[in-house]
Amino acid sequence: MTMTKYQIIMNSFIYNIPCKVYFGENQLENLTTELKQYGRRVLMVYGSGSIKKIGLYDKVLSLCQTDNIELFELANVQPNPRISSVREGARICKEKQIDVVLAVGGGSTIDCAKWICAAACVEHDAWDFFNEKWAPVERALPLIDILTLTATGSEMDAGGVISNPETKDKIGRIASPLLPKVSFLDPTLTFSVNAYQTACGAADMMSHIMEVYFNNDDDFYMLDCFMEGMMKTIIKYTPIAINEPDNYKARAELMWTGSWAINGFINGGKMKRWSCHPMEHEISAIYDITHGLGLAILTPRWMKYCLNEKNIDKYVQFATNVFDIKPTADKMQTAKAGIAALEKFLFDTIKLVRTFPEAGIKDNSNFEIMAQKAVTLGGLQNAFQPLNTNDVVKIFEMCMVN
Amino acid sequence: MTMTKYQIIMNSFIYNIPCKVYFGENQLENLTTELKQYGRRVLMVYGSGSIKKIGLYDKVLSLCQTDNIELFELANVQPNPRISSVREGARICKEKQIDVVLAVGGGSTIDCAKWICAAACVEHDAWDFFNEKWAPVERALPLIDILTLTATGSEMDAGGVISNPETKDKIGRIASPLLPKVSFLDPTLTFSVNAYQTACGAADMMSHIMEVYFNNDDDFYMLDCFMEGMMKTIIKYTPIAINEPDNYKARAELMWTGSWAINGFINGGKMKRWSCHPMEHEISAIYDITHGLGLAILTPRWMKYCLNEKNIDKYVQFATNVFDIKPTADKMQTAKAGIAALEKFLFDTIKLVRTFPEAGIKDNSNFEIMAQKAVTLGGLQNAFQPLNTNDVVKIFEMCMVN
Repeated sequence: MTMTKYQIIMNSFIYNIPCKVYFGENQLENLTTELKQYGRRVLMVYGSGSIKKIGLYDKVLSLCQTDNIELFELANVQPNPRISSVREGARICKEKQIDVVLAVGGGSTIDCAKWICAAACVEHDAWDFFNEKWAPVERALPLIDILTLTATGSEMDAGGVISNPETKDKIGRIASPLLPKVSFLDPTLTFSVNAYQTACGAADMMSHIMEVYFNNDDDFYMLDCFMEGMMKTIIKYTPIAINEPDNYKARAELMWTGSWAINGFINGGKMKRWSCHPMEHEISAIYDITHGLGLAILTPRWMKYCLNEKNIDKYVQFATNVFDIKPTADKMQTAKAGIAALEKFLFDTIKLVRTFPEAGIKDNSNFEIMAQKAVTLGGLQNAFQPLNTNDVVKIFEMCMVN
Repeated sequence: MTMTKYQIIMNSFIYNIPCKVYFGENQLENLTTELKQYGRRVLMVYGSGSIKKIGLYDKVLSLCQTDNIELFELANVQPNPRISSVREGARICKEKQIDVVLAVGGGSTIDCAKWICAAACVEHDAWDFFNEKWAPVERALPLIDILTLTATGSEMDAGGVISNPETKDKIGRIASPLLPKVSFLDPTLTFSVNAYQTACGAADMMSHIMEVYFNNDDDFYMLDCFMEGMMKTIIKYTPIAINEPDNYKARAELMWTGSWAINGFINGGKMKRWSCHPMEHEISAIYDITHGLGLAILTPRWMKYCLNEKNIDKYVQFATNVFDIKPTADKMQTAKAGIAALEKFLFDTIKLVRTFPEAGIKDNSNFEIMAQKAVTLGGLQNAFQPLNTNDVVKIFEMCMVN
């Protein structure tokens, strides 16, 4: 795009989210109608047995049988999904001439399914999408998903993160052909998500919003208001969902917020890179901890490390508009009160652990190499507060202590 | 859809807005690429000469010539667009075998273009979409729009309102084939919109949000927050746009808010009918006043008329969250302060006239028949506060005096 006169005020952008969402209970009755738009040979991708426990597996099977849909399966997709699952899924798609992929599960399952859809359309190895070849994603099989965990927002965005244990890489990439065609968001399917996973999901969603919100690159007031509303929604309804796992309204509020936290709408024309996600990817690539937990531990430290006189206004806005902290003349005090309120929410209210050691990360021997990767792969020199390797090591070190 | 257990808490819904938006300055360089997706025979629909004054007409012509697009024209679409324009446009589409319609203008032009797209695909008369036949809208020609006036949100929704002076009807209808494929939203194209039209647009947008917000039918907290943020955006940036017509940020904030005020996202599962729009349609069908002005005059009266002990909480929420009014123990006082703040915004800050007589509606002789039509066509018995003909006449009468 040509540089334009008003670009200094706001960047131009393209908004395009042609993902159809069936939101609510009992929407699955529309599943086979949607699948058949794309064909009758379906690969169902799912994770552990949780979808069997809640009866969803049987339900999908029964719906597909009734409607003469030929279902193939790829099971055992793991949290922090592996490139090996992508390869296996792509192999099945080619061998069985799959028309459409159906992801049933949380963000890991959907991310894995997205890259299966892409890898099924190329001859090269699936990891070539992520290594230095950065192979183009020109097309992908159509993807439909049924979400069972509110967290990553993968159900309504065009990105997916894949781990490679051999290279110790965890890399996310966005490509428009990966956007799901249809998402089924049924809050009742998240009733069985336990307190810990609900809390980790909430931390992930908060981070998705904060990565965009903490960004002085031509902020839209209307989008900032929306982000503040979504953060308040997470703060209000996560404790309810934890205490009353089958509270439909709480699960619904969180589920819809999870999708809108990362589907691209809140970006407007912002072009700054994210901060905590690249750092966390290096953590969970090596230590395999839950993504949302890693973000919860990192985010307040990152906020403290980056706070300065130049960016303080955004912290004050966060404190006052998200946590209803009364601003005082001392901006620094207000900013810090906002960080403290976030810590209280994450570590006291929804009870995530506060430090790396409590999450099983006992030594700092990998911090240097992790920090280098985070800076390079995440483009952290173009983040809200530009960060170099040394900065990231310091933030990691802050996570080792209370 | 089957009745479900949790429907009493929240209705299920389908979200589907596959409209691609190019937002920002200089995005028109992508116009012909998008047009050519659908074909090279294009009908350009526009209103008065304002698009010629700002150079947009020449720009579109030049872009299309350069790219070998054959352009046909339907000019002179009027505010409160007439069924006669729809008929004429459909005739041209059939005769010239048009591939795609390009609407260049405000809501009236886009609404008219939508129904041209639909009428071009059927043999029956265009008014059959609106009379008792209520002919189905099964398909429509693809529509692309370039917006020049922030107000109706027609650029990103699937509805359009058409007037029939012969029957004195003004009827809106929503049908998914009418959703524009692509919208070009360039805030600089609204720099020349005068203070009055900017204010009328703001009133229209406020009403779109309030029609949904005042609705106790399973409110999503996260969507209420978004609606409050959009209303605050309108309140904050309309005076700026009026005082500094070429303030890019103000025009951009209003433009993007206008689209999201009515594209369907804020509805969630709400199924209540709107109140002020059906009433206003009857006003402007007969008196041909600007839609937004009619809404500005009606809305505070409607709020006063409907306020009661049962629905007061929504009024209090509006007063405190939109206008930052400090709530007191006396809810009624807070609710009324919210209405007064809205009046101050509409009639003092952005200077719209306060009464029907000031808008040229001097007599009440048509009120009874207008009220009957509003109740019937608008389904007002299913609105926020159910309204019958007598109620609507009383609200109209309230608009006659200060």
